[in-house]
Amino acid sequence: MKRVAIIGVGHSKFGVRADATYCELAFEAVKEALEDAGITQKDIDISIVGSVGNRLYDMYPAPLVNEYVGLTSRGPLRVEAACASGSAAIFTAYNTIKSGFAETAIAIGVEKMCEVDTPTSTAIGGRGCYLWEFHMFGTSFAAYYALFATAHMNKYGTTEEQLAKVAVKNHYYGAKNPKAHFQREITIEQALKSRVICWPLKLYDCCPISDGASAIILASEDKVKELKIQDPIWILSIGYSSDTGNYTRREDYTSIKSTRIASQMAYKAAKINPEDIDLAEVHDCFTIAEIMAYEDLGFCKKGEGGKLIDEGQTWIGGRIPVNVDGGLKAKGHPLGATGCSMIHELTKQLRNEAGNRQVPLKNYLALAHNVGMTGQYCYVTILGR
Amino acid sequence: MKRVAIIGVGHSKFGVRADATYCELAFEAVKEALEDAGITQKDIDISIVGSVGNRLYDMYPAPLVNEYVGLTSRGPLRVEAACASGSAAIFTAYNTIKSGFAETAIAIGVEKMCEVDTPTSTAIGGRGCYLWEFHMFGTSFAAYYALFATAHMNKYGTTEEQLAKVAVKNHYYGAKNPKAHFQREITIEQALKSRVICWPLKLYDCCPISDGASAIILASEDKVKELKIQDPIWILSIGYSSDTGNYTRREDYTSIKSTRIASQMAYKAAKINPEDIDLAEVHDCFTIAEIMAYEDLGFCKKGEGGKLIDEGQTWIGGRIPVNVDGGLKAKGHPLGATGCSMIHELTKQLRNEAGNRQVPLKNYLALAHNVGMTGQYCYVTILGR
Repeated sequence: MKRVAIIGVGHSKFGVRADATYCELAFEAVKEALEDAGITQKDIDISIVGSVGNRLYDMYPAPLVNEYVGLTSRGPLRVEAACASGSAAIFTAYNTIKSGFAETAIAIGVEKMCEVDTPTSTAIGGRGCYLWEFHMFGTSFAAYYALFATAHMNKYGTTEEQLAKVAVKNHYYGAKNPKAHFQREITIEQALKSRVICWPLKLYDCCPISDGASAIILASEDKVKELKIQDPIWILSIGYSSDTGNYTRREDYTSIKSTRIASQMAYKAAKINPEDIDLAEVHDCFTIAEIMAYEDLGFCKKGEGGKLIDEGQTWIGGRIPVNVDGGLKAKGHPLGATGCSMIHELTKQLRNEAGNRQVPLKNYLALAHNVGMTGQYCYVTILGR
Repeated sequence: MKRVAIIGVGHSKFGVRADATYCELAFEAVKEALEDAGITQKDIDISIVGSVGNRLYDMYPAPLVNEYVGLTSRGPLRVEAACASGSAAIFTAYNTIKSGFAETAIAIGVEKMCEVDTPTSTAIGGRGCYLWEFHMFGTSFAAYYALFATAHMNKYGTTEEQLAKVAVKNHYYGAKNPKAHFQREITIEQALKSRVICWPLKLYDCCPISDGASAIILASEDKVKELKIQDPIWILSIGYSSDTGNYTRREDYTSIKSTRIASQMAYKAAKINPEDIDLAEVHDCFTIAEIMAYEDLGFCKKGEGGKLIDEGQTWIGGRIPVNVDGGLKAKGHPLGATGCSMIHELTKQLRNEAGNRQVPLKNYLALAHNVGMTGQYCYVTILGR
């Protein structure tokens, strides 16, 4: 079976991008990815756009984006997997190469979220469908994750301080990332004193609403040789899963089951264990989500996520550095862009190009974990060099 | 490379389905497909939902649909390619099998369009974005296709009567299809006298707004053997392309370039010629679209599409029967469902299970042609037995 490499990555500045349209954001990322790969649009066989979309701009974002970035005729579809749409685009692009449809593919994750009255503001503000919410009508995303947090605190003694420490770490690294939405360090005191959004989650426990884009160029092993690319980054495996949105059917609220299934699938396919991973990007839409991810991805035992951040093990220099680009929390979370942004960071890290945020590499293995909604989608992607 | 078979097909009744929700429509199709394949939900590895979507129901249709039809944990994403979303779902499902991710996959195309004030009503009523419409601001889909029709009439002498004949044929077959939205024959006089929507297109030149779903189950060659399925239908190839949405950049308005590219790609990969095809499902969102498809797919020479319908060559018994299930025109066009519905019909035909609409088979080869927007998406899928 063909191997698939990452040969180019690009990333727009994340943030409140009133200066750029949806298509312009995509272009920022695509331009950088093409330059990074040293190729042009004509070298791209297929384009997959990952976006939740925004009908203020267009019902059909893919042709619009492809036209604007110079990829007309390459775009067969848009994919959507809520907050995991970027990973879904990479998964789809990867499959088009593995199946022989294409030798090169680009995954373009893009979202414009900072206007009001848009589906995406609705999408992140509320779950959107009451069918599965009947016993908790009106539950917003913050409320769902507050539910996870209280359950985790109750069962494992996880504390508000531990949640705040995740925010402090991610803001620390966000401050070093010029592409991050927030480039400002915070203290534990600031985090703990910030206003309550949905207890125990406070302002600094929540990721922001951001605009942004990221693009990843994939190529078959043959194409890597043809382009004479030395030492590329390889996609070793992708795991995926989805859990029920009906909370009455969930096993418990202290874990995301689809993360466990997707990561096991990815570890098995890559023939590695969690201990082998040098660094990870995990889906920290709320600080509790990062703590659950530590556990569900196997970076520590169940219930010991709070301890892991207490010990500083997820900082650079620790056992498993996590979200050293700022994470969703400080870098921002433009839904469709996030999955691609994670792969962007890991690619730079595995190339030793991450500058003052570089993680020391031992096995040259990295993991990206991207969740949609509250686990209705999950992708785990393992990269190696 | 693995071969991929179609082992089950299902189809809801198309029409104004005020009696069924979005999820219920999907269930009708999925239930029938599972029964047709003789398997249950637990045999499905992966589920791909093709839908333009409708935020009245949910921003994120795939988890909702998968939950409702008993496929929780199987659904990694939704795909959207406007009116070609069903074909995009099949393309994506096909790739997940070809790439080794899955042994079985289901493509679920579903749309609920008959409520007012929805994105889908906007989506089909208007193009939605003025960026590429600057020299024809406000152009609706009917207006775009009227533009194609007048250009075709001007260049090739195609007549309003020829357009009407397409409608008459498709209504004739729709009348024999219990799943069709319209099950009523019409006369040329009725078609020609129906009210003008956008000249030269009249009411009977336009497909209706319909609700509906269709589901297709795919399996790898190994799985076909394991399930002891005798004589399945095979996907021989899929071609895709996309053309610019900027009409100032189109070569002309008498042809859909992406149809030509996608069909050439599909013929080449299947190693066959247009003459080998026993029957086709083509994208007749408007009658002129069917005439252009005859030409762009190579069923006749450019400019001779009108003559082909005049001679009755696209009726059963003719050289290349087209849309003998009623087509989008009479069967209906629930955007996401349409691509799957085409494959449903062709599978039934290739199995000789099409009853009073059965096409005599010579080479056991069939072609589905599904366009998104006005060629911004195009998929051509070739099936064989």
